[in-house]
Amino acid sequence: MQYPPHLSCLIENFKKLPGVGQRSAERFAFKVIEWPPTQIEAFSQSLFKIKTHIHYCKICGALAEKEHCFYCNNPNRSKSLLCVVANPKDIFALEETHSYKGVYHVLGGLLSPMHHRDENTLNIAPLKHKIEELPLEEIIIALDSTIEGDATTLFLKKELDFKKVKISRLAFGIPVGSSLEYIDGSTLSRALSGRRGF
Amino acid sequence: MQYPPHLSCLIENFKKLPGVGQRSAERFAFKVIEWPPTQIEAFSQSLFKIKTHIHYCKICGALAEKEHCFYCNNPNRSKSLLCVVANPKDIFALEETHSYKGVYHVLGGLLSPMHHRDENTLNIAPLKHKIEELPLEEIIIALDSTIEGDATTLFLKKELDFKKVKISRLAFGIPVGSSLEYIDGSTLSRALSGRRGF
Repeated sequence: MQYPPHLSCLIENFKKLPGVGQRSAERFAFKVIEWPPTQIEAFSQSLFKIKTHIHYCKICGALAEKEHCFYCNNPNRSKSLLCVVANPKDIFALEETHSYKGVYHVLGGLLSPMHHRDENTLNIAPLKHKIEELPLEEIIIALDSTIEGDATTLFLKKELDFKKVKISRLAFGIPVGSSLEYIDGSTLSRALSGRRGF
Repeated sequence: MQYPPHLSCLIENFKKLPGVGQRSAERFAFKVIEWPPTQIEAFSQSLFKIKTHIHYCKICGALAEKEHCFYCNNPNRSKSLLCVVANPKDIFALEETHSYKGVYHVLGGLLSPMHHRDENTLNIAPLKHKIEELPLEEIIIALDSTIEGDATTLFLKKELDFKKVKISRLAFGIPVGSSLEYIDGSTLSRALSGRRGF
């Protein structure tokens, strides 16, 4: 439709968000027009501040508001436990469990030949360097349970085996709260092969 | 989750958009972090400019980048034809048809006792004033085909009947391209009662 130029521009910007098409972008933009000016200003400022205030931690690649992140900076986090994740967002999911007290390393993605992502696109070299430097006892590989995640996990297992540090990965099995009849075959098969004694 | 404050702030702002919950807002915010700074800046600027550049036309209530909108300002638009719509967005939908060459009047909503919107919340007085002033031949009421839309249409019909101007409303019937077996009863009933000779 023939919207005023500034409105079109906002709609185009909304369309760059994941999963937002023309219709949703229009709905968002028309809603924004109805907002009080202070609310629009706050939204605009919050975007601007993301650009200026949020960085990637120089040590682990997590999101940080200072040079280093909350985890690398923190004397209460064990430096003998390192958790390898694909993206900074995964760290927040792991933190939510309150079950992990080590430090992190963000790979920056997963191996995926289909999307032209090979090992050179991942932060492997700093990870190897970290294994040499830190007094590590265990490396936990916490990647997606997808073909890309599995491939990357196997690749890392081979790459990181040069120093005798225990390498583990997250357990696969039945999600808590689900009933057997609705579990897919591959998950059930993994849950079987990963069964544990009492 | 425990996100850095500036990230939380952006997520909260995204959640104010219609239909966006916590998960979608997080997806949006994490996507924005990956954008190049120029793109974030452009998004932030486009929001800011909406606030400063988009106004409501003082005559009809349509969206405008100047004091008056494209339609009221335009000598090619007939001043004898007035189309009453609920929201500024409806004008763009009507313009898309390229079938209307008159001017508009935005009511600013529909009557809805459930949502405490009575006639005092709508722009009725300026509309009556316009009927006195303009050399009108026809007023087209183009409101939603909902209970609120129907109630508002009937209300307007009564209110605007004081000067002998033809008042019409959009036709109701079968949407173009649909087959009879999938049309709901009320629509079919309206299509029957509104049937026209060849």
